[in-house]
Amino acid sequence: MSVSSREERILGIIETARAKRPRFKDTAITMAHGAGGKATQTLIEGLFAPAFGMTDLDDAGAAGDVLVTTDSFVVKPLRFPGGSIGELAVNGTVNDLAVAGARPLAITLAMILEEGLSSDVLRAEVEAIATAARAAEVEIVTGDTKVVERGHADGMYLATTGVGVPDPRAQLTRLRPGDRILLSGSIGEHGTAIMLARGEFELEADVASDTKSLWPTVDALLDAAGPHLRAMRDATRGGVASVLNELARASQVAMVVDERSVPVDPVVAGAAEILGIDPMYVANEGKLVAFVAPEQADQALAAMRAIDPRAAEIGEVRTDPPAMVLVETAFGGRRVMDQLVGDPLPRIC
Amino acid sequence: MSVSSREERILGIIETARAKRPRFKDTAITMAHGAGGKATQTLIEGLFAPAFGMTDLDDAGAAGDVLVTTDSFVVKPLRFPGGSIGELAVNGTVNDLAVAGARPLAITLAMILEEGLSSDVLRAEVEAIATAARAAEVEIVTGDTKVVERGHADGMYLATTGVGVPDPRAQLTRLRPGDRILLSGSIGEHGTAIMLARGEFELEADVASDTKSLWPTVDALLDAAGPHLRAMRDATRGGVASVLNELARASQVAMVVDERSVPVDPVVAGAAEILGIDPMYVANEGKLVAFVAPEQADQALAAMRAIDPRAAEIGEVRTDPPAMVLVETAFGGRRVMDQLVGDPLPRIC
Repeated sequence: MSVSSREERILGIIETARAKRPRFKDTAITMAHGAGGKATQTLIEGLFAPAFGMTDLDDAGAAGDVLVTTDSFVVKPLRFPGGSIGELAVNGTVNDLAVAGARPLAITLAMILEEGLSSDVLRAEVEAIATAARAAEVEIVTGDTKVVERGHADGMYLATTGVGVPDPRAQLTRLRPGDRILLSGSIGEHGTAIMLARGEFELEADVASDTKSLWPTVDALLDAAGPHLRAMRDATRGGVASVLNELARASQVAMVVDERSVPVDPVVAGAAEILGIDPMYVANEGKLVAFVAPEQADQALAAMRAIDPRAAEIGEVRTDPPAMVLVETAFGGRRVMDQLVGDPLPRIC
Repeated sequence: MSVSSREERILGIIETARAKRPRFKDTAITMAHGAGGKATQTLIEGLFAPAFGMTDLDDAGAAGDVLVTTDSFVVKPLRFPGGSIGELAVNGTVNDLAVAGARPLAITLAMILEEGLSSDVLRAEVEAIATAARAAEVEIVTGDTKVVERGHADGMYLATTGVGVPDPRAQLTRLRPGDRILLSGSIGEHGTAIMLARGEFELEADVASDTKSLWPTVDALLDAAGPHLRAMRDATRGGVASVLNELARASQVAMVVDERSVPVDPVVAGAAEILGIDPMYVANEGKLVAFVAPEQADQALAAMRAIDPRAAEIGEVRTDPPAMVLVETAFGGRRVMDQLVGDPLPRIC
């Protein structure tokens, strides 16, 4: 391709993106705006990005020589099988850095506490934060504490910001047709654990959150695939489906996912069926999706499997239809796996 | 002083600090833990710092080559004369970097929104954030949005993290006896404006928040005093009194403040008297206290006055009694200006 035709193509992509910028027209905020699906995207692309002059809508932004990422945590309940809000706050932020190809270095911690919060609950979260930070090898360098009156803030809300150093092995880029889609393990555990912990359903099942630092997985992927690693995303709010849709749109490519190859724990699958939710839309807090050029996909998958034997190749990037994700079902059919609309699982992280 | 006696002295200071580390013994969180006074300090020094292995309790922490600082904002009401929560979130974080001697470069923005929040209110804050960021010359590099159910979060809470580059002119150090205490302008405006805006008092007065970026003031101070500038603090929650107490403790020095030299707007003084609050404890959002070696104090003050003609020298660092702040009153007496106990002005920022 000549330079000028390449430039034309890039301009074409920018035009398409401009034309497709959603407009934020809602009159009030709804739970759906926090769900990580279509409403969140409209809020970000239609209101925040133009106002703040953001050209890059990734979770991580460059500030001088470092990458920074920020997240707030409003999960309910504060503790659940497999983790707690404090552990989530550390790992969530560390993972946003990791999938941006940056080695996590430090985090900051802002706490909004509710008047009347038991000191024992606070102490337990402080301990969980400290333990998770040590495990993820990040230093907590500064913090802030605010207190709001009883009845607000559900005990506590946390906001963490991560600072990381871009890893020279990471040369992340746009997706290309033919890229393989890899998943680092089984899906849906975090969201299912939270739903069950709320006790709103007459359902008991032994499901624990998968919250953990993804840096070791990223580190292994960078070693195995280096410049052939195109992109990574941690599949949190909105699950794997949302991550795939976001990237299909951003790169104007199609994706085809083989449903049978997606690892789902039978207990999670059972709970999701009863709750009427597709596990592909359920939040994870320790799983990533990686896009790897075909020539290095097997090595990348082997590296992921050395960390989690349930890692799997789940699909492929195609050319058409652009910006769409298709699923090949277990029955041989095909359907569109669309963006999440509404919020089936609020306050999940 | 010989090296060994200097070392002994430093060890002595560390011992003192250790011996004086407060223990966090409260059974539940109260509004006072968020007020920036004695209870906040006990929470930080007694619980957070030991758990997180923090040796430096400044508002800014080093992460690689940059300084980072974080803050959350829960001010009520969201808009008030002179500013709004969005403007405060940008300036507050920029100012924490500035007084640490770092040029503000970028900020991150985490928003916790209440279900049902009017889009017009959100739009206005997004605009306020964008405008304040442009004025402070910082880029908003990344963000996050969560939504919580109606009745929580008072419309919105914000958490901002700032990334700054240490300015080579800044060689901040411990305070020494003889250092002059400079104040960048009149005090108490932000806290008073918020209290009046709440309408809880039968009192109307024309007071606007002083929220603004302090980097221009810091820049001028660094030019004028360079290595003679010992320390700076922005006098937010807990006001000038809290900042002086914190530094007197940290450096184990005494401070004497001449009450008559502290600039207070007559309207603020009048409102504070009716509310029964000393303006020295009232929050500012655009004022700093600077400590400058005596030989460069006049130049530093002149530089501050070129930005705000009400800047003033308000006192001096002394040796005894260590860790105490004394006020010389307008009537020639002396009293202790102690740490804030309780929270006379909750949800001020």
